[in-house]
Amino acid sequence: MNRFRTEHDFLGEKEIPNEVYYGIQTARALDNFHITGIPVSKEPLFIQAFGYVKKAAAMANRDCGVLAPEIADAICKACDKLIAGEYLDQFVTDIIQGGAGTSVNMNVNEVVANLALEMLGHQKGEYQHVHPNNHVNFSQSTNDAYPTAFRLALYRKIEHYVESLENLQQAFAKKGEEFKNVLKMGRTQLQDAVPMTLGAEFHGYATTIKEDILRLNEAKMLICEVNMGATAIGTSINAPEGYPQIVTDHIRELTGIPVTLAEDLIEATCDTGAYVQVSGVLKRSAVKISKICNDLRLLSSGPRAGINEINLPRMQPGSSIMPGKVNPVIPEVVNQTAFYVIGNDMTVTMAAEAGQLQLNVMEPVIAFSLFSSFTYMSNACYTLQEKCVDGITANEELCKQMVMNSIGIVTALNPILGYEVASSIAKEALATGKSIHEITVLERGLITQAKWDEVFSIENLINPKFINQ
Amino acid sequence: MNRFRTEHDFLGEKEIPNEVYYGIQTARALDNFHITGIPVSKEPLFIQAFGYVKKAAAMANRDCGVLAPEIADAICKACDKLIAGEYLDQFVTDIIQGGAGTSVNMNVNEVVANLALEMLGHQKGEYQHVHPNNHVNFSQSTNDAYPTAFRLALYRKIEHYVESLENLQQAFAKKGEEFKNVLKMGRTQLQDAVPMTLGAEFHGYATTIKEDILRLNEAKMLICEVNMGATAIGTSINAPEGYPQIVTDHIRELTGIPVTLAEDLIEATCDTGAYVQVSGVLKRSAVKISKICNDLRLLSSGPRAGINEINLPRMQPGSSIMPGKVNPVIPEVVNQTAFYVIGNDMTVTMAAEAGQLQLNVMEPVIAFSLFSSFTYMSNACYTLQEKCVDGITANEELCKQMVMNSIGIVTALNPILGYEVASSIAKEALATGKSIHEITVLERGLITQAKWDEVFSIENLINPKFINQ
Amino acid sequence: MNRFRTEHDFLGEKEIPNEVYYGIQTARALDNFHITGIPVSKEPLFIQAFGYVKKAAAMANRDCGVLAPEIADAICKACDKLIAGEYLDQFVTDIIQGGAGTSVNMNVNEVVANLALEMLGHQKGEYQHVHPNNHVNFSQSTNDAYPTAFRLALYRKIEHYVESLENLQQAFAKKGEEFKNVLKMGRTQLQDAVPMTLGAEFHGYATTIKEDILRLNEAKMLICEVNMGATAIGTSINAPEGYPQIVTDHIRELTGIPVTLAEDLIEATCDTGAYVQVSGVLKRSAVKISKICNDLRLLSSGPRAGINEINLPRMQPGSSIMPGKVNPVIPEVVNQTAFYVIGNDMTVTMAAEAGQLQLNVMEPVIAFSLFSSFTYMSNACYTLQEKCVDGITANEELCKQMVMNSIGIVTALNPILGYEVASSIAKEALATGKSIHEITVLERGLITQAKWDEVFSIENLINPKFINQ
Amino acid sequence: MNRFRTEHDFLGEKEIPNEVYYGIQTARALDNFHITGIPVSKEPLFIQAFGYVKKAAAMANRDCGVLAPEIADAICKACDKLIAGEYLDQFVTDIIQGGAGTSVNMNVNEVVANLALEMLGHQKGEYQHVHPNNHVNFSQSTNDAYPTAFRLALYRKIEHYVESLENLQQAFAKKGEEFKNVLKMGRTQLQDAVPMTLGAEFHGYATTIKEDILRLNEAKMLICEVNMGATAIGTSINAPEGYPQIVTDHIRELTGIPVTLAEDLIEATCDTGAYVQVSGVLKRSAVKISKICNDLRLLSSGPRAGINEINLPRMQPGSSIMPGKVNPVIPEVVNQTAFYVIGNDMTVTMAAEAGQLQLNVMEPVIAFSLFSSFTYMSNACYTLQEKCVDGITANEELCKQMVMNSIGIVTALNPILGYEVASSIAKEALATGKSIHEITVLERGLITQAKWDEVFSIENLINPKFINQ
Repeated sequence: MNRFRTEHDFLGEKEIPNEVYYGIQTARALDNFHITGIPVSKEPLFIQAFGYVKKAAAMANRDCGVLAPEIADAICKACDKLIAGEYLDQFVTDIIQGGAGTSVNMNVNEVVANLALEMLGHQKGEYQHVHPNNHVNFSQSTNDAYPTAFRLALYRKIEHYVESLENLQQAFAKKGEEFKNVLKMGRTQLQDAVPMTLGAEFHGYATTIKEDILRLNEAKMLICEVNMGATAIGTSINAPEGYPQIVTDHIRELTGIPVTLAEDLIEATCDTGAYVQVSGVLKRSAVKISKICNDLRLLSSGPRAGINEINLPRMQPGSSIMPGKVNPVIPEVVNQTAFYVIGNDMTVTMAAEAGQLQLNVMEPVIAFSLFSSFTYMSNACYTLQEKCVDGITANEELCKQMVMNSIGIVTALNPILGYEVASSIAKEALATGKSIHEITVLERGLITQAKWDEVFSIENLINPKFINQ
Repeated sequence: MNRFRTEHDFLGEKEIPNEVYYGIQTARALDNFHITGIPVSKEPLFIQAFGYVKKAAAMANRDCGVLAPEIADAICKACDKLIAGEYLDQFVTDIIQGGAGTSVNMNVNEVVANLALEMLGHQKGEYQHVHPNNHVNFSQSTNDAYPTAFRLALYRKIEHYVESLENLQQAFAKKGEEFKNVLKMGRTQLQDAVPMTLGAEFHGYATTIKEDILRLNEAKMLICEVNMGATAIGTSINAPEGYPQIVTDHIRELTGIPVTLAEDLIEATCDTGAYVQVSGVLKRSAVKISKICNDLRLLSSGPRAGINEINLPRMQPGSSIMPGKVNPVIPEVVNQTAFYVIGNDMTVTMAAEAGQLQLNVMEPVIAFSLFSSFTYMSNACYTLQEKCVDGITANEELCKQMVMNSIGIVTALNPILGYEVASSIAKEALATGKSIHEITVLERGLITQAKWDEVFSIENLINPKFINQ
Repeated sequence: MNRFRTEHDFLGEKEIPNEVYYGIQTARALDNFHITGIPVSKEPLFIQAFGYVKKAAAMANRDCGVLAPEIADAICKACDKLIAGEYLDQFVTDIIQGGAGTSVNMNVNEVVANLALEMLGHQKGEYQHVHPNNHVNFSQSTNDAYPTAFRLALYRKIEHYVESLENLQQAFAKKGEEFKNVLKMGRTQLQDAVPMTLGAEFHGYATTIKEDILRLNEAKMLICEVNMGATAIGTSINAPEGYPQIVTDHIRELTGIPVTLAEDLIEATCDTGAYVQVSGVLKRSAVKISKICNDLRLLSSGPRAGINEINLPRMQPGSSIMPGKVNPVIPEVVNQTAFYVIGNDMTVTMAAEAGQLQLNVMEPVIAFSLFSSFTYMSNACYTLQEKCVDGITANEELCKQMVMNSIGIVTALNPILGYEVASSIAKEALATGKSIHEITVLERGLITQAKWDEVFSIENLINPKFINQ
Repeated sequence: MNRFRTEHDFLGEKEIPNEVYYGIQTARALDNFHITGIPVSKEPLFIQAFGYVKKAAAMANRDCGVLAPEIADAICKACDKLIAGEYLDQFVTDIIQGGAGTSVNMNVNEVVANLALEMLGHQKGEYQHVHPNNHVNFSQSTNDAYPTAFRLALYRKIEHYVESLENLQQAFAKKGEEFKNVLKMGRTQLQDAVPMTLGAEFHGYATTIKEDILRLNEAKMLICEVNMGATAIGTSINAPEGYPQIVTDHIRELTGIPVTLAEDLIEATCDTGAYVQVSGVLKRSAVKISKICNDLRLLSSGPRAGINEINLPRMQPGSSIMPGKVNPVIPEVVNQTAFYVIGNDMTVTMAAEAGQLQLNVMEPVIAFSLFSSFTYMSNACYTLQEKCVDGITANEELCKQMVMNSIGIVTALNPILGYEVASSIAKEALATGKSIHEITVLERGLITQAKWDEVFSIENLINPKFINQ
């Protein structure tokens, strides 16, 4: 047997190693695109999604009577291999390419065609029987197949990320419960403010993540709108009547993802608004988780020359030179991941803006950015939960001392003494180093000890009631 | 009468010109913040929103029995002046300030207090009767009053922007209808693709804007969640029992905006996620409108060495040196506005990420960015509709010639001849300059003239049916 | 006299109020562009720069024999008015416009023409004597005049910003000297590290700003390359021979700015790389100053539940509810300004990328972004110096206590005891709360008291010598 | 022999597979950081740079008399393996990690220690002889070793990128020469402007890239400033006297890179300004190359319904559905790479801004972003040169026709007829479809045919002389 087969396209011929399932157009893409060195196979969900798309198209073509059942059947079986995650190594196209995804789509068309050929007892490359364009890509264009597969994969990516967020949210909620009686100083603008509990702070983190889950689930629905059957530019040229709806229904049934057919297929074929929205919502959650990590690093600063309210789990020696030093390495890596995600949002933005006329040719870099952002950010959330949040402990006594030693507690006397008198107490405390109690009760006699005890009971500090004269 | 009155706060005394309604803390802010030179009064909706917030707070304090009815009443009347847009020149604080909005909140407290004092027959500055902190700011903190007013104003800003988008959408829809029979070449990747109508293209613009309206209306709801009554850090310290809900209800009734009280007030006091979401959705629409403007500039390029499918209204001579030149100045200014909005989204992102612990101190720059982004982008949309879209005309004959002269129409022969034969026709056309018709029908006799006429009827080109052998 | 005069251009006629010096094309711009509401007159340096450009062009045209000396002279005198800052209110064009600056250039041409007309005893609008295009704009195009004026103004903006940085640098250097003996804990990753002095920390801030000054001065030179005389697209069409160099020389002499003529005028006419560079360097300095402000806020956190090493000047009451609270409002406003500048860099980036073919039409938004970024950031630097840095004081005793109480000082024992033994001491200190001295000298007897005193002398802690066994 | 050895650090013990050269701290990093899945070994220049740093440190320690010569020698030999690119698979730490690079530094320390141990005849893990911290990391901290290695690697990355730019510049320059007589229409704002040559356009691309090379070479020098010997926070704690300069000299000699020791080591240890500058300059070049690619796609648009001035090499079939379609896939992939680089600049910006106090803990994500940006962008430049620019051809006849058919050439008559008359000719041409020649010479007789021939000779169109009456 020959080690090579000869394939051709309208630009000419090319020798293809006989063992590979991809063909000439993939080989051209391999020649043309050496940018990241990362093959598209690094996103298995994307290849799987293409399996669904090509299978659904074959079924719809068969339903519409434009594709012979035996060919449709072979294509479906070939697609099942992709759906099962097999032959991943055949998807060799660089994840960033020119051509609006044509190379990836053709990579899939060629692999599916050759798999189908072998199933039907033919040799690879005998495309007269099953052709990458005429059969596998029938009634399709890159311009509907690629974005549809992208959307299916993105849907799963969002689901996975949401799982990681739910997991993280629960970890924070659990700590919120655990710390619900730990009295501590609240701070605004890094200055001592008024008391709160550590539990409420961690509960707030759980709440804020819960809101991101809601937003992500909304954004997830936006990408369920597909343009299958709109072919090249949205006019459905070359697609049989009824095909767009039929293929969309097949995709929905095969995947369980609630895809719908876009109403305006011209618009849907060039619009990347849903990606911008998804990226924006992902960025939002990265921003908020980064803020949480900033807080965790601040609250655990010290141990002796910092705030030191909480202890993060000690994951690794913190220094190659300073003995005993342990650093908040987990929040740090999450911050950095968030910055990466925020940068990627800018990439997505520019790529979306650069779309021209009937197609956005920059979709591959949008896919690359969103895929890696979701993967990294999911990893970061699991890491944060497992390696950090779960093991956080509180320095309860220290937290309480800081409250009682603070000037900020004078705020609780506003309703009784008024802002101006309270200000003068605060001013004296700051100047002299005295405590609020000392000045208010012992020296100035402004309120009785009983009133003081009522206002500054632990319970009232944690959950302040309005107490006035 | 003295030209000055002396006011004091816990940092000392200051002379205040007698004619102004603001007081010492505003005067300090005037000294401290010279950044943009733009006073907060440049956002009248923001001052109006503060009027509602302060009025609702006074009403709620009265309802809770912690504020004397006559003082509450005077405060309400003073607030009505702000709501009516009066005394705008008293809001002098630079729109970017430190202090998380404290200076703006105090600016409002002081103006309201002095207005109320005069209404009650007192002199400005006689704060023993109506005090900026003890009465006007009662049961509040900057940390709930400022973001609540910001949200109310932002809600209105979104509404106004949505109106400008609806207006623009209708303009595009009208052109979509007008151009529905104008056959033209569709283009992907700037290369000739397959035919479509100019009407479908403009209809697509209307569709894509309609989707942004949906997204903005969703985002608008997110900012209806307020934290009134949570005071300094979300624990409601110093607020009377029941107050948070009561004040929220008053705001809803006074404004007609469907505000609700946040469930987790600790989280709500420090979270800026809703702003990030609004900014992201605004950015999305800017990205998409910028893409449309890129298209309009491309399609009107020429007139003789460009695409020249459409004519934009001629708004002004296009050159100080080239006679007769007219440029697409309106889309150009819209592009630039979009870039400004995209930059501002980055500002919002960084400001949101920089929030620490119980408060995001960077809220003023978020407000500045969002307010100006919405204003500029609304202006841009009205400009685009009025000065450009409404007057667009089509070069119908030229559009049709480009279709018939194209190679891309060979795509319509794929289902009949197969991709490979169609490719060879395309290749010959490209090499020889011949038309598709010449090669396919006259020279190679691959299809009959009758079949050709069926496939390439105007009607079928506009709305392609699937035609195979 | 009529209240209006009638002007015309090739699009038609328009009534112009007789008292204004601008003409029909400015009036069209006023109609067309309502985006920011900020007139270009808000940047007086820009108008002044146009004065220089138009004056130099008139002189060069006269030198080349293509402009009558008496007209050239009148134009020069009119330009002197602009250079002197007069008639600023005549520059009414919105600072963001379409047309690549044509409207601003024509606004200048028209004002200069009418001023020149009056000087020659004519009426405004009698353009047969001095014409905005034929005379004032002679041998020019917007495409060389606008960017040249922009560059001249930007040069001055950079100079002003550098002055503000020098001022700030000196303030930090002075504090570096003042605090040179204040021993404090150094921190990495917010964890206690090893000792240093507060003076070294502030000296570092001065150093880092000094480096930005160097970078800005380099970037300033990049924008001295101008394309005067290249007219519409860089081919010098309509400019007399020798004119480009002559006009450039005049500009250099008139302004004192070392402008040079670009070698490749085609490239220079469309390239915006210098703006991207300037914006990037400005962003760099904003990033670094923001980092300094973050540090200042951290170091002054507390006063009782934070780090509290330094005190910032107390500029204003920090809360409308919490008595005695004072916040780091000045660093906060500087952070926000930096975020604004960083956002604007993105705007500049997008605008630069959007340039097409022979011209970048997005230059007005680049100008707007850079002008406001420089203005705001200069203001922020002066504010930071005057209202914050100059008044910073150190809590010297507290700083020293934190050092002596720290675990991090064990690092100094590495060379004597090795990293592993030092680690075990650190570990014990952390677990038991004991001091390093107690464990090392008293309990384990690992070094003598004499050795301890040598290693932990204040002098050695401030300026560590390498001490081993 | 055991399959595992037991190692310990101050957090406890861990089993390490005997065959690996890294130790316990690397193993902890492997446990802790699963973000990107990309090991640091993916940047071989970074590992090589660490080889130089560790070797230079061992040499300097030996010179200072604090490290036994035989240990220093073994370390140097081990480092030579790293410099030679061996043992790359031992560098397993995820490229984004927390800890400011500690894990990567320890990964290197451990591998070098174990290699040195084997060279000295010991077993891996017998650190009493050669210890990762006490010997390999002697006189160092992550905080000087990591950024120094990063800077060395970055220097090489910039060099490689500059090579790719030089290569691209020459390709454009060659085309500039090839096309120097191809007359074509210049365009501003996508509207026909005045004539130029295609050669001048391509020469301009060469010029603009040449300027980026200059800027990159300047930026390259900024990162030559290192902080070796400043150890943990810049105070040189634990480093022997004289060591900082000695180690810096060794690095310079070993690498040939002109590194210098920073003057202010406190500042140098926390400052990331040089990275921001490098990133900004890289972004600048990405922006400009993206603009060039936008131009190439525009100029090659069509072939029949676009501008079609030039032909890009046909790299691959352009559509899975449209026969004969070939797309500008190479410029497209370069655009996308540029967007990625621009996004990464934002990541670098945020990471730089997030540095706190004595160290920027976010350096790993800066390294990741810059390394991948440089690699991808270099790849993109080589791809652009080889697969696109080299093979560009001009449609010379079409280019000339568009010029002669244009209205814009009337500009050349301004000096003879004045802007107003020229405008009226342009207006008539636009309205009637007539040519400028027809109106000016034949109908209106405004100039003679001889004058026309002089003004509109090819030579004068290419290189316009100033011709007036």
